[in-house]
Amino acid sequence: MATTIPVPLPQSPYQVQIAPGGLAEIASHLAPLGLGQKIMVVSNPEIYDHYGEVVIQALQRAGYEVFQHLIPAGETHKTLASINELYDVAFQANLERNSTLLALGGGVIGDMTGFGAATWLRGINFVQVPTSLLAMVDASIGGKTGVNHPQGKNLIGAFYQPRLVYIDPTVLKTLPEREFRAGMAEVIKYGVIWDPELFTALEEANDLSSIDHLAPALLTQIIQRSCQAKVDVVSQDEKEAGLRAILNYGHTVGHGVESLTGYGVINHGEAVAIGMEAAAKIAHYLELCDQDLGDRQRQLLLKTKLPTEIPPSLAVEDLLASLLHDKKVKAGKVRFILPTAIGQVIMSDAVTGEVIKATVL
Amino acid sequence: MATTIPVPLPQSPYQVQIAPGGLAEIASHLAPLGLGQKIMVVSNPEIYDHYGEVVIQALQRAGYEVFQHLIPAGETHKTLASINELYDVAFQANLERNSTLLALGGGVIGDMTGFGAATWLRGINFVQVPTSLLAMVDASIGGKTGVNHPQGKNLIGAFYQPRLVYIDPTVLKTLPEREFRAGMAEVIKYGVIWDPELFTALEEANDLSSIDHLAPALLTQIIQRSCQAKVDVVSQDEKEAGLRAILNYGHTVGHGVESLTGYGVINHGEAVAIGMEAAAKIAHYLELCDQDLGDRQRQLLLKTKLPTEIPPSLAVEDLLASLLHDKKVKAGKVRFILPTAIGQVIMSDAVTGEVIKATVL
Repeated sequence: MATTIPVPLPQSPYQVQIAPGGLAEIASHLAPLGLGQKIMVVSNPEIYDHYGEVVIQALQRAGYEVFQHLIPAGETHKTLASINELYDVAFQANLERNSTLLALGGGVIGDMTGFGAATWLRGINFVQVPTSLLAMVDASIGGKTGVNHPQGKNLIGAFYQPRLVYIDPTVLKTLPEREFRAGMAEVIKYGVIWDPELFTALEEANDLSSIDHLAPALLTQIIQRSCQAKVDVVSQDEKEAGLRAILNYGHTVGHGVESLTGYGVINHGEAVAIGMEAAAKIAHYLELCDQDLGDRQRQLLLKTKLPTEIPPSLAVEDLLASLLHDKKVKAGKVRFILPTAIGQVIMSDAVTGEVIKATVL
Repeated sequence: MATTIPVPLPQSPYQVQIAPGGLAEIASHLAPLGLGQKIMVVSNPEIYDHYGEVVIQALQRAGYEVFQHLIPAGETHKTLASINELYDVAFQANLERNSTLLALGGGVIGDMTGFGAATWLRGINFVQVPTSLLAMVDASIGGKTGVNHPQGKNLIGAFYQPRLVYIDPTVLKTLPEREFRAGMAEVIKYGVIWDPELFTALEEANDLSSIDHLAPALLTQIIQRSCQAKVDVVSQDEKEAGLRAILNYGHTVGHGVESLTGYGVINHGEAVAIGMEAAAKIAHYLELCDQDLGDRQRQLLLKTKLPTEIPPSLAVEDLLASLLHDKKVKAGKVRFILPTAIGQVIMSDAVTGEVIKATVL
């Protein structure tokens, strides 16, 4: 039943497995990994209410000693203080080097759990069970883990690969629609930067704004193609030395918008949608692509009921200052990923503050 | 002038360079690494008073933009809170992904700076300039970084390799004698676990308790052979999956003694000396080696004026409980590294609480 996408990293290969309705069968997919006896499930209260029991019973049936730790939902808890609490719980459970932290949740839970796994006892096993579309197609794959610094998102973190990413798309039925749409922003992103067939498949759908409007087979296909796109990119560039930067399409302006409006007001996917619109406008302004690309992209974003405009409340100077503090800045230049065709982007350091002002502010 | 020891790790090869009197020439050794413009020197006030200016001027002369951050000396500051302050300073300096943290200090500074480098922006460049004997021959090589948890030493951390380890043995002239002796404990350890020639070279010296009693050439030789031993081991086992465990010779009991007496009362090297004596006694009790090995080892420890006995103030139950919480515990069994001959050790899970009580308590 499960579709397997191998992630062929030289030092730490692993698999993404997509198994519709397969949550209760997770233990059989863990068995080949040779994990130690102890597994700590890390989740948030809402997700745990829905799926905690299924996962924990499945693990216990397979003979694991299971612990749990809940972190309140939301980006505001993605802090070093939360990690410190996770350390305390890991100590209480007497986790050993072959023990496992299993992230059951969205991107925030995954990033924090991964950072905890990366840094407890200098690295213990880590398994991702993403429950949001965003986490399934993006955050859970590629080994980026971390927490926010008061001054910026994800400034504290590590590259640390999971042993397994286990995706059951049917859990999305309990995902709030706004979060589903946020995940669709990243799906659309993969269409623009990597996979023209995914893009046209999305164009053929009537409505992308809710899981209720998507056929299960299309949903699985979308997740699968998106995961494959992410895997293709990160397996060629594990530590973000080059190619991986294209995944930041939409994220340059997106991060700025997200941090300036305060984390949580505009969510990550919405910010990326705004950032993609901005990047397409900049690309057209710089004559890198035609108007049609931006129009088609905007149609998908609108069909998903995602925002495309920078909130008018944002001050121009603040956004520019924020862009200059982004961690992808090199020697003071802002790096943008810009589309040249559907399925194709380039990296540009040619985007000055003037261009940004002229096009998107 | 500099002796180079390559560390041939597949993903992150680097060099240990030993350059007596070469501190002011450090920049020429950084040049081939292609580091970014910004270097932050992390040190403690005492070390910085001695060597900060030399290093910073050398870096500035070579055109680097140099920042500095001082952390008060001592194991009590090796905390997540100190790392959090380091993050703040890294943010203020607007460090970028190609920026560098340079640890100028002993093991505590090296471990913390390395962990900061491993986890800021998911990993920036890291250079080790160890100023204690312990850091030169042990802590600076092999990529172990981290901080203490209130419940145990080094529970929080990451494997993260430096780009360069740069050792100027002449800086040891300002090292307190007690710390010099602590470093000698690890040197003696390498003789026992790996290098019989190093062991006999140490036996030929009259007094190992002070740098004043060692000829500069012998000191350099000791550092070089010790570094080579450490490199030999870690390059065969980067992530401590097997062989590297032999480096923990003396550390099982040592960690327990160190944590129970309160960090800083007995220092790390002294605790390791006590632990090596304990391990030799256990090995003899289990008929793994003859009495002579323990005697010869004890002679070296005494010639270095290192302690060999567990402080009588320690409660037996507390020490046993502490051993069972050590992170090298697997499935409830305490792992010991035990000598079978000079230059040779084995790993044993056969050491029960009863054996420990019968031999060393």
